[in-house]
Amino acid sequence: MADFELLRELARPNGSKIVLLVMDGLGGLPLTPDGKTELETANTPVMDRLAREGSTGLHVPIVPGVTPGSGPAHLALFSYNAVQYEVGRGVLETLGIGFDLRPEDVAARGNFCTMDENGLITDRRAGRIPTEECIRLTKKLQENTHIEGVELFVLPVKEHRFALVLRGEGLSDKLTETDPLVTGKPPLPVEPLEDTPEARRTAELVNEWIRQAREVLKDEPRANCLNLRGWGKDPQLPQFTDIYKVKAAAIAVYPMYRGVARLVGMELLEHGSEIAEEFAALKAHWDEYDFFFIHVKPTDSRGEDGNFDAKVKVIEEVDRHVAELLELKPDVLIITGDHSTPAKLKSHSWHPVPFLLWAYDAMPDAAQSFGERECARGQYGVMPATELMPLAMGHAGRLTRFGA
Amino acid sequence: MADFELLRELARPNGSKIVLLVMDGLGGLPLTPDGKTELETANTPVMDRLAREGSTGLHVPIVPGVTPGSGPAHLALFSYNAVQYEVGRGVLETLGIGFDLRPEDVAARGNFCTMDENGLITDRRAGRIPTEECIRLTKKLQENTHIEGVELFVLPVKEHRFALVLRGEGLSDKLTETDPLVTGKPPLPVEPLEDTPEARRTAELVNEWIRQAREVLKDEPRANCLNLRGWGKDPQLPQFTDIYKVKAAAIAVYPMYRGVARLVGMELLEHGSEIAEEFAALKAHWDEYDFFFIHVKPTDSRGEDGNFDAKVKVIEEVDRHVAELLELKPDVLIITGDHSTPAKLKSHSWHPVPFLLWAYDAMPDAAQSFGERECARGQYGVMPATELMPLAMGHAGRLTRFGA
Repeated sequence: MADFELLRELARPNGSKIVLLVMDGLGGLPLTPDGKTELETANTPVMDRLAREGSTGLHVPIVPGVTPGSGPAHLALFSYNAVQYEVGRGVLETLGIGFDLRPEDVAARGNFCTMDENGLITDRRAGRIPTEECIRLTKKLQENTHIEGVELFVLPVKEHRFALVLRGEGLSDKLTETDPLVTGKPPLPVEPLEDTPEARRTAELVNEWIRQAREVLKDEPRANCLNLRGWGKDPQLPQFTDIYKVKAAAIAVYPMYRGVARLVGMELLEHGSEIAEEFAALKAHWDEYDFFFIHVKPTDSRGEDGNFDAKVKVIEEVDRHVAELLELKPDVLIITGDHSTPAKLKSHSWHPVPFLLWAYDAMPDAAQSFGERECARGQYGVMPATELMPLAMGHAGRLTRFGA
Repeated sequence: MADFELLRELARPNGSKIVLLVMDGLGGLPLTPDGKTELETANTPVMDRLAREGSTGLHVPIVPGVTPGSGPAHLALFSYNAVQYEVGRGVLETLGIGFDLRPEDVAARGNFCTMDENGLITDRRAGRIPTEECIRLTKKLQENTHIEGVELFVLPVKEHRFALVLRGEGLSDKLTETDPLVTGKPPLPVEPLEDTPEARRTAELVNEWIRQAREVLKDEPRANCLNLRGWGKDPQLPQFTDIYKVKAAAIAVYPMYRGVARLVGMELLEHGSEIAEEFAALKAHWDEYDFFFIHVKPTDSRGEDGNFDAKVKVIEEVDRHVAELLELKPDVLIITGDHSTPAKLKSHSWHPVPFLLWAYDAMPDAAQSFGERECARGQYGVMPATELMPLAMGHAGRLTRFGA
C-alpha cells in the first residue's frame, strides 16, 4: 500500500488540480475470445487521445484473483490498503444512506425477518417486503423503542434491509451477530466479543432494544422479527486530505460512494443525479478545490445487468463529458474504474482495471487508445490500485524530493 | 505472497475444476540472440490456441535473479512464500523418497565420505559409490545402530546420499552440521543451535549415533565415514486444501515432487512413470477431485542435459496430451513451469517462467502463441509465482467478494 508516513512528509500544496474520474465497474471482457471489451468497443475519441498522450496501465484493486465490493475498491483507489482498513458493513450501509455517522456511534445493518409461533425464523428476508414497508416499519421502531442514555436511529435502506445506529458514550462494536444464517432456528442473542465493560454494556442495551423491537413488530404479518449484523464504528481512517494536503471534493450520486469519500475526509458536493449534472458540478466548483473525485455509476449497473451495449453507451457519454472537463485544464487527470464488472459475467470481478494518467509530465507509452489490452501494453504494467494516487501527486508536482 | 488469511476467508467450494500443469524447468533461452527458445521452437498448436484465448504472463518463482531448487519453486507455485516457509533439505530428501515423515520426526540428509587414518576427510562423496552400495550400507547401519528411546530410519537416496530420520518425543532440529565442506579436515561434532534441553539432548543422541555408525563403517574401503546436514522437521505448513477448500490430487513421478505436494496437503495418485500414464491418471480420477497438480519432469532433465532438441520434443509430447485434457472440460487450466532450465545453461536459472491461464472468464491478451516472449506481452506482465493460485481461484469463481 501507499506509505502514508512518507507521502505525508513529502506532500505540499502547489495550486495544481487533480481529477480522479471513476467509471464504476469499468473493466470488461470480450463476449467471445476474438471479440472486444465494452471499453474497446466504445467510440471514445477523447479518452483515446488522452491514452496516447498520457501513461497507461492496469490496476489490481485488492489482490490478484479477489473480487472487491465497491467500498474496498474505492478505498484502494484513494490509496488505502483495503484489507488493513476493513470497514464494517454496518458503517458502509449507514454512510451509504447519507447518515451523518459520528466517531462515537455504533452501527449495524439490520434485516427484517419472519418468525413462527415457536420463535423460529421461517424467512430471513421477510418475503423481501417492499421498501415502503421498510420505511413504515423503521419509523414505527424509531417512535416506539427507547434506551436510557442512548440516542437511537432506525434507518430504512431497501426492501427488508435497514440500519441501526446507537449514539452515546462508551459504546462498543465488539458484538456478535444475531442472524443464525439458516431458517428453522431462533435469532441469537447479542454477546460481547471482548471482555470489556463497554462491550458487555452495549450487548445488554442492544438485547433490550431487540426485545422492545420485537414487541413493536409482533403483529406484523411478515416482518415480525429482525436480525442485526456487521457491527462497526467509523474506523477513523487517516485522512486523505491531511496526507496529501489537498482540498478534496467528491461528486457522486449514490450514498455508498459519498459515504466512502466522506470517510477519508473529502467534502461532498450537491448536484443532480445525471452524469451531465455531475460534470456541471465539477465545473461550478472548479476554483474551490485541488482534488476532485467524480464517480459514474451506470457503467457498473449496465455491467451487472449483462447489457454490453448499454455499458458501451455509458462510456461513450462519459467521453463527451471528458471533452468539457479538459476545457477546465486539469493538471493531472486519471480515468479508470474501481473494479471490473464485465457484462459477460453480470457481476463484479477480479480482473485488473485499465487506467490512463494524463498530465503535462506523463510519459506517452505504447497504448494507442483507451482499452484493457492497450493499457496492458502501457507504461505501468499491472500495479496495485493504491499506487495511483501517489503517481497523481508526483505528476502534479505535489511531492517534494526524497533525500538529497 | 498470497494472503492466506484473506484467501481462507473468501474461498468456498463450487464444484469447478482447476488443473495446474507444470512442465519442470519449462523456461528456456535461445541458443543465439536471434534464435528461439525451446518452447518457442516447439510445435504446440493446442497450447498456442489456449494462449490466444486465455491470459498470459511470466512468473518469478522466488525473487528476481534467484535460481530456485525444485522444492521452493513448487511451494511458490502452490502460493507459499518459499523464503518464509523454508523446508529443511533433510525433510525434502526424506519426503522425496516417499518416507512417511511425522510431525515429531527430525530428518537430516547424509553423505557417505572417505576418511584417512588420521580422521581427516579425503573425499566428501566417498568416490560417488553406486546406489546399490548406498542401499547395502544404509541397511547395515539400520541393523547395527541403536539409540535408547529413539526409533531410527537410515534411508538410501542415491549414490553417496542417504537420509537419517530420528523418531521420538522431544527431539529438536536445531543442530549444527558435521560437514567441514573441505577435504583435509575431520567431520565436526553436532552441536545444539539453541540452548534448550531438547537441542542439547538431540545433539548428544546424534553424536552417539555417529560414533556407532563410524564403528559399523570402519572397514569399508571408501564409505568409511559420513556427514549429516540440513536438519529439519515437517514445517507444518498451512494446508493448501484447507486454505483453498479444494480436494486436491497430485500426479507426479519423482518422489521429491510427490513429497512437496504431500507437504501442503494434496493426495498422491498412483500411476506409471510415462507422461501418457500421468494424463491417463488425471482422466481416471477426474470426478474425485477439484484440483489437480500434474508434473512433467523430462523438460527439466533435457534442459539439464543441454539437449535443446530433446526438450523441444518433450514439450511437443505434452501438447498432444493437453488436447486430451481439454476433453475433460477443466474450468481453469494453468500451464507453466516451476522455474527455467535453459538447455543453453544446462542448469536451473532465475529467468521468469512463461504461463498461460485459460478459463471461460480469462481476458484474451496480446500473446498469439505459448512462448517466453509472447507471454511477456501478456495481461499479467511479470508477477510473483505465488499469485497464480489466487488468480486460478478467482477465475474458478471460488473466491467470494471482498467487502460490500
